[in-house]
Amino acid sequence: MEVLKIVKIGGNIIDDEVALDNFLSEFSKLTCPKILVHGGGKTATKVSAKMQVEVKMIEGRRITDRDNLDIITMVYAGKINKTVVAKLQANKCNAIGFTGADGNSIVSEKRKVTVIDYGFVGDISEVNTEILQLLLKSNITPVFSALTHDGQGQLLNTNADTIASELAIGFASHFETELYYCFEKKGVLKNINNDASVIEVINPKSYISLLADNVISDGMLPKLNNCFHAISHKVHKVCIGKPEMVFNSEEIFTTIQA
Amino acid sequence: MEVLKIVKIGGNIIDDEVALDNFLSEFSKLTCPKILVHGGGKTATKVSAKMQVEVKMIEGRRITDRDNLDIITMVYAGKINKTVVAKLQANKCNAIGFTGADGNSIVSEKRKVTVIDYGFVGDISEVNTEILQLLLKSNITPVFSALTHDGQGQLLNTNADTIASELAIGFASHFETELYYCFEKKGVLKNINNDASVIEVINPKSYISLLADNVISDGMLPKLNNCFHAISHKVHKVCIGKPEMVFNSEEIFTTIQA
Repeated sequence: MEVLKIVKIGGNIIDDEVALDNFLSEFSKLTCPKILVHGGGKTATKVSAKMQVEVKMIEGRRITDRDNLDIITMVYAGKINKTVVAKLQANKCNAIGFTGADGNSIVSEKRKVTVIDYGFVGDISEVNTEILQLLLKSNITPVFSALTHDGQGQLLNTNADTIASELAIGFASHFETELYYCFEKKGVLKNINNDASVIEVINPKSYISLLADNVISDGMLPKLNNCFHAISHKVHKVCIGKPEMVFNSEEIFTTIQA
Repeated sequence: MEVLKIVKIGGNIIDDEVALDNFLSEFSKLTCPKILVHGGGKTATKVSAKMQVEVKMIEGRRITDRDNLDIITMVYAGKINKTVVAKLQANKCNAIGFTGADGNSIVSEKRKVTVIDYGFVGDISEVNTEILQLLLKSNITPVFSALTHDGQGQLLNTNADTIASELAIGFASHFETELYYCFEKKGVLKNINNDASVIEVINPKSYISLLADNVISDGMLPKLNNCFHAISHKVHKVCIGKPEMVFNSEEIFTTIQA
């Protein structure tokens, strides 16, 4: 099977124009089929402040009310997504921007209200790869922002890491799918204060003991859950590290194994 | 040749949720290949005001500086475009949102500074229909917002009427292309105060005499120029009127003839 690389980038690249330009230039040189998934970075928070829309938090969790959904739609699917697409075109990478609504590619369900009402947040229920496959075959690079839809006209804010892992799973029977989570560190660190302490391989067994030893930070937990979800659903390769890991085989990073 | 309908809608539909829902429901029922092009409506102006970004005018013409381009990108390509796409999906119309940067579909040149510097405004230089044709064949409906790109990474604000006419021209050798400009009137009116005074056909000869008689209002002039540009470049049918004209053969509207 042909290799498909799905690369997720976050705020450390999105918010830094030089880093973004460098990343997109390297990403464009990848000759295999590829999909980019981006988070939101700080722009949404800045726009919220400018528009005097309060960012609501309950028990440390961000709540997506209607005004915040509007801002997320404007910033993620508008400003960031189209800026990335235009920059990829400048690098001769023929990109098309996507939310889950586009091509009905990612359908989700509005998260049920239990103790907390998260608002317009979607949990993915369905990934449709048919149109995306057609585009990949025509040398198009889909660029996903962190929005899905419920199939009934409602856009929903959806975690970008989860979008990346669900896309990877959706493509796993069609491609040898590789999933790369890029962030600001070289990988999962044994000692969060020591950048050289990268754990090069995590498997379920070692994951359990890392959890027991409190090595895994709170922020890393959902990312690793996404990784194990992907690797246990036929995704070929799952990696966490700096963006350089996607392009340079000599980089050190964390690989998740089944 | 197969019929392709290209329908442009403006603020009178975009700004009115009931009108928009009704329109999209009817539009979704069209069984032929179709493309929707939308303007911006009043949302961009409202967001500009909320973000305290000044809307700059020189000699009555709107200037797109960097802050205004950001807002246009957020509102047109983000909020409006994705809302329309999600609503079309709810009507079982499989849509994908586009700017000219997506799929490199519409390339433009930043308007040269002469007496006025219009800022980030693009005049279309190239329409690439290959990917769009592939999508139309797969029963996808592209939805265009009023943005293009210069191929060097810069998004540019571009008139939605012109995007519609240039797309129609780009497809004219592949489809029997019909171009519909929807607005709040039943067509071009002989007497602007009399909605029943629709001029049902305008050809170059009658256009000249309408101009001489000052029947054509200032706002209608660029729209009619787009119409004549399209009809003289192999577009099969060009119409101006209420959105109902697209769905109901008994509607009265204005047809432009070569």
